[in-house]
Amino acid sequence: MGIISLGGVLVELSDAIKGRRTVRKFKDDEIASRDLEHILEAARWAPSWANTQCWEVVVVKDEDRKRMLAETLTQSNPARGAMTRAPIVLAICAKRGLSGFYKGGPSTDKGDWFMFDTGLAVQSMCLMAHSLGLGTVIVGLFDAKRAEEVLKVPEDRSVTVFVPVGFPEKVSHAPNRKEISEFVRYDTY
Amino acid sequence: MGIISLGGVLVELSDAIKGRRTVRKFKDDEIASRDLEHILEAARWAPSWANTQCWEVVVVKDEDRKRMLAETLTQSNPARGAMTRAPIVLAICAKRGLSGFYKGGPSTDKGDWFMFDTGLAVQSMCLMAHSLGLGTVIVGLFDAKRAEEVLKVPEDRSVTVFVPVGFPEKVSHAPNRKEISEFVRYDTY
Repeated sequence: MGIISLGGVLVELSDAIKGRRTVRKFKDDEIASRDLEHILEAARWAPSWANTQCWEVVVVKDEDRKRMLAETLTQSNPARGAMTRAPIVLAICAKRGLSGFYKGGPSTDKGDWFMFDTGLAVQSMCLMAHSLGLGTVIVGLFDAKRAEEVLKVPEDRSVTVFVPVGFPEKVSHAPNRKEISEFVRYDTY
Repeated sequence: MGIISLGGVLVELSDAIKGRRTVRKFKDDEIASRDLEHILEAARWAPSWANTQCWEVVVVKDEDRKRMLAETLTQSNPARGAMTRAPIVLAICAKRGLSGFYKGGPSTDKGDWFMFDTGLAVQSMCLMAHSLGLGTVIVGLFDAKRAEEVLKVPEDRSVTVFVPVGFPEKVSHAPNRKEISEFVRYDTY
């Protein structure tokens, strides 16, 4: 593969990466099962620690269940409305004690790597959703213990984030980003 | 945006996501500074906890510094050779106590979210590199304390992963992935 022949791909991936916005207001339109499958496939192909693939996804469409999950967010959380308005909420779970572990103990000073690996998979899912014209918001602030009860998640798993998905009704503007010069250094910090 | 008019993008993003492989053997070819910039831009536009953007990137090109970093990996680590053969090693750092924190304390049962946010940014970088014809490997297993000394990283930052980047000499086959039915459930776990 060369850069010239990939000009189109570069522009489009770059557009997807820069164009993806957090979306909290959704239309009522349903998500086609083929689109959902593309999003789940995107998670499937993410890399992970020694290919442990610790992530699991609960696809929540049931209105009552979405409402119960919304109640695990505080009233002031701006994503709370998205939990019930989105036609689908993806509850991203992870099996603990797998990623970053060797023979039952953590291999690094970071402990369990489930958060890192989940991050890899979630980014692929959000980019894929965006390329399908769908909006997402990554919700990390909620009562996880309560959410795990609502979803009947086993003890050795955590619910890491919720990702409501739907057709955007309103797309937020991009929050400011640091300039490259503000977060990049050369050879040493 | 509609699905039909985005058919091309879908196929291409999907190809990038499924086609990205771990690469540990690189050619000697240098990486154009424009390509490096595209990869850093990809990190820049990743989402993060309350837009905290905790990640920082040290771009390591100096041969001695790469060798010193390679020595923070065990001899048996299959990525050790990639640390010196790759023309560039990206050392992904993160400021702790920022992502997932509110008024100095963690907001959730997950503690610091720097691993999750770093995962989001790293996946965007690896996909962008792949779309430019470049290969990457995500290295998490190394002596982080020693690496932080080599890179002169301040106390309140962690080196989370190394990402050697270069033109692939040899591309590994895709390790098996779970089927969607093995990691996806509906409405409850």
